[in-house]
Amino acid sequence: MNPVLSGIAPSLIRELKARKKPGDIDLGLGEPTLKPDVRYFEAATERVRREGCPYSPNAGYTDLRAAVAAYHAFPDRGGAENVLITVGSEEALYLAIKSVLDPAGDEALIVEPCYLAYPKLCALEGIRHRTVALNGDDGFRPSAARVLAAMGPATRMIILNSPNNPTGRIWPADELRTLADGLAARPGPPVWVLSDEVYRELYLTPERPASIGQMWPYALVAGSLSKSNALTGLRLGWLVGDPEAIAAATKVHQLVNTAASTFSQMVAREVFADPTNLGAHRAHYAERLELVAGLMKRNGIGLVRPEGAFYCMVRLPLALEHDSLAAAEALLEAHHVVATPGRAFGDSGEGWVRLSWVAEPDDLRIAIERIAAFFATADRG
Amino acid sequence: MNPVLSGIAPSLIRELKARKKPGDIDLGLGEPTLKPDVRYFEAATERVRREGCPYSPNAGYTDLRAAVAAYHAFPDRGGAENVLITVGSEEALYLAIKSVLDPAGDEALIVEPCYLAYPKLCALEGIRHRTVALNGDDGFRPSAARVLAAMGPATRMIILNSPNNPTGRIWPADELRTLADGLAARPGPPVWVLSDEVYRELYLTPERPASIGQMWPYALVAGSLSKSNALTGLRLGWLVGDPEAIAAATKVHQLVNTAASTFSQMVAREVFADPTNLGAHRAHYAERLELVAGLMKRNGIGLVRPEGAFYCMVRLPLALEHDSLAAAEALLEAHHVVATPGRAFGDSGEGWVRLSWVAEPDDLRIAIERIAAFFATADRG
Repeated sequence: MNPVLSGIAPSLIRELKARKKPGDIDLGLGEPTLKPDVRYFEAATERVRREGCPYSPNAGYTDLRAAVAAYHAFPDRGGAENVLITVGSEEALYLAIKSVLDPAGDEALIVEPCYLAYPKLCALEGIRHRTVALNGDDGFRPSAARVLAAMGPATRMIILNSPNNPTGRIWPADELRTLADGLAARPGPPVWVLSDEVYRELYLTPERPASIGQMWPYALVAGSLSKSNALTGLRLGWLVGDPEAIAAATKVHQLVNTAASTFSQMVAREVFADPTNLGAHRAHYAERLELVAGLMKRNGIGLVRPEGAFYCMVRLPLALEHDSLAAAEALLEAHHVVATPGRAFGDSGEGWVRLSWVAEPDDLRIAIERIAAFFATADRG
Repeated sequence: MNPVLSGIAPSLIRELKARKKPGDIDLGLGEPTLKPDVRYFEAATERVRREGCPYSPNAGYTDLRAAVAAYHAFPDRGGAENVLITVGSEEALYLAIKSVLDPAGDEALIVEPCYLAYPKLCALEGIRHRTVALNGDDGFRPSAARVLAAMGPATRMIILNSPNNPTGRIWPADELRTLADGLAARPGPPVWVLSDEVYRELYLTPERPASIGQMWPYALVAGSLSKSNALTGLRLGWLVGDPEAIAAATKVHQLVNTAASTFSQMVAREVFADPTNLGAHRAHYAERLELVAGLMKRNGIGLVRPEGAFYCMVRLPLALEHDSLAAAEALLEAHHVVATPGRAFGDSGEGWVRLSWVAEPDDLRIAIERIAAFFATADRG
């Protein structure tokens, strides 16, 4: 066996989920409970009737690549040659890390708390990596200064996620600008910024989130239809970036799986026929957040108010804050609620749990009451 | 950029295809021209209407994994835990090479002529590899003795393909038995046999091909619906093997793309509801082969009679046999037929061209007459 695999820890989230029993309420979910619009699938099926289901070009259908480029509308990145269609944003992350970094010396710097696939992908590919933590006391506010200060001489990639899983925070435009300016001022080879924007459409702020892709020519932006349109199972994502990086990523993509599913690309063409389709579920999540925030307040639970995605971080009471895994286990065993220990998102998440609020309103109400009861007991205990 | 990428040559096949002009007849195709049965897509769309399109488990839906295990029916490999659902057989090959070999010292031995993704995937993953060539003078007859004699002390994987692209040859059961016995007799750690069986259903012999999976516990068998059911764009494949190898491959799969498309798995469930569906196109290819073999004979072109897949190898005339690429280029420029230079399948393919015979009968007739004319001119020239 490849010895690198034994060094990659299994997912805490999955281990905890395996202990879920019938009747438990799941606030650990990482995917929408909404259903997708089946008309996209009907139209794609009609297309299969006419055209069959042949291989697409390795990098994806040119019209779909062009539609994705137009959707992001980054400066100088407006053509199909700037986009690779991938098997979900997960493959986009993998391809970026695998293609543009040299395992012999390059280092990735990962902004925490984060989805732990980032460090695991680096480990899988033999890429040296470190993390830089945002500050929980500051609500995990994105900070360019922190990231720039943490860079080392071998840092060739920064990995960030906005809107963020698990914090729900969005990188503000001025912080991204400071980051881009800081990177531009550094001597030496350019530093890639891999920006995971899979929650791009699920913003809860008045304005659409800014992207480092608007400001930095070495941005590589990963996206997908998974979260915006309840299409996690479609496995349709993309990587946007400069043509040389996209060509390198395409070379790997071609070898590891040839191309993304033609049917999934046909569905995506239907969605992108009117890009406002990508925002179809935004109002639903905004409404659900109001409900959750109200329930939290009424039950005396403090949370970092999310700006996007469908998660929030909740600080554990003092008695529990040293061990978020034990807290999540106790919450599950004694109160029948699945929550995700903050530690699953890096050391900086310790002392917190992540709640996802895609569940039904009645379940959310019951779960939040149970969490409040659990926290109260812990602080008395 | 990752320096390993610059060492991986671009595909000769794609380079040649890029020069194809309208009106040229394409016998270079690597996918069926048949259309798939659209009813599978209709049923899967109904399922999306009811269930949405959520993530599947990382390794694929358990019932589909069990159906694939039952379909291959290898000894002690009959359970879902023996199967990983992948993004086409291409990902199955990648995962096998990436997961079970140690780049620090293990070597793969690749049986040629072959699909050149095998050595390229080894190069991508930093796996040392050598090839062992079958003998063109012997019609590229599979030979266990040749393979066993070529093994070295570090050989930990043999990669073979049956039915074979490009030769159309099938590994006979007795050769596979000799191979398994030879491997069993070797001292040292076990040697994996990665068997690419993507053309398993397209056999032109009276009997279904044997598989090393029936005879060797360290077999890893890659398959897919791409060629059997004209579903290349579905990107639905699988890897079958021992549970430890499947678990390791699943770990990589989860990190690099999470899971295969849920919709593609829904389509596959419909196909596997009656496994005879996988043989639906076999008669079509058998009939087409009779036509092609007759046309070849009438035009005086010698071929290695295919036993499976939809390709055949044709020996170049003496005047052309030193350079199959130049021959294919001349055939395209002067006679408007796309064929694949044998060199695209390794050094052992030099002196040959591969013709695929998925084209329409009229096109096949015209193309074969043109090839005959080209060969005749070359020998006179």
